[in-house]
Amino acid sequence: MDPDAVAKAFVEHYYSTFDANRAGLGNLYQDGSMLTFEGQKIMGSPNIVAKLTGLPFQQCQHHITTVDCQPSGPAGGMLVFVSGSLQLSGEQHALKFSQMFHLMPTPQGSFYVLNDIFRLNYS
Amino acid sequence: MDPDAVAKAFVEHYYSTFDANRAGLGNLYQDGSMLTFEGQKIMGSPNIVAKLTGLPFQQCQHHITTVDCQPSGPAGGMLVFVSGSLQLSGEQHALKFSQMFHLMPTPQGSFYVLNDIFRLNYS
Repeated sequence: MDPDAVAKAFVEHYYSTFDANRAGLGNLYQDGSMLTFEGQKIMGSPNIVAKLTGLPFQQCQHHITTVDCQPSGPAGGMLVFVSGSLQLSGEQHALKFSQMFHLMPTPQGSFYVLNDIFRLNYS
Repeated sequence: MDPDAVAKAFVEHYYSTFDANRAGLGNLYQDGSMLTFEGQKIMGSPNIVAKLTGLPFQQCQHHITTVDCQPSGPAGGMLVFVSGSLQLSGEQHALKFSQMFHLMPTPQGSFYVLNDIFRLNYS
């Protein structure tokens, strides 16, 4: 397994799901998952999905600029660090953002998101 | 222990050491520590210090905009996500950056940096 390839595939899956069907992101989180969204702390897949689907915009499109990845320790986790921009429907300018994910392996050989921190980068 | 207070104290210590005496950062990393700096992967405290002290500027000042923090799992680690700006001596405009640290506990009750990912946010 090439960690960079796994990270890239995860990132593409995550943002294409976000842009097409935000509620579908629930499968990527578990009960112990944490999201910090612009400083607001949210825990557990149902609450995280409620936050993401409740954001005050309908259509959006993420564009990825960089993806960095490192193993997070002996438990088999992976840290994924993303920078990119977010285009909201009807808005002229895209918003820059940075986001990090801590992916942990599942018994089924896949990964789930244990940690997720999102920040807009105001310029 | 308040994780947010620990994260904030770490961040203040890290960047004040960076700005005053970059070589002093070596104590915060260990042999297994990883740095990804603008996409370049570096491993181990001596190599990380060599990279940071070899950056093509002498004086700099970091300004922190946001610090977010989450526990990273049962091993007692902590994820710290920072956004801010970097003012280089003699340059008119500060550079925006995002950086994440994965702190792991030491037997002495302190923390070391296992993972470090740094990216400039070009605007």
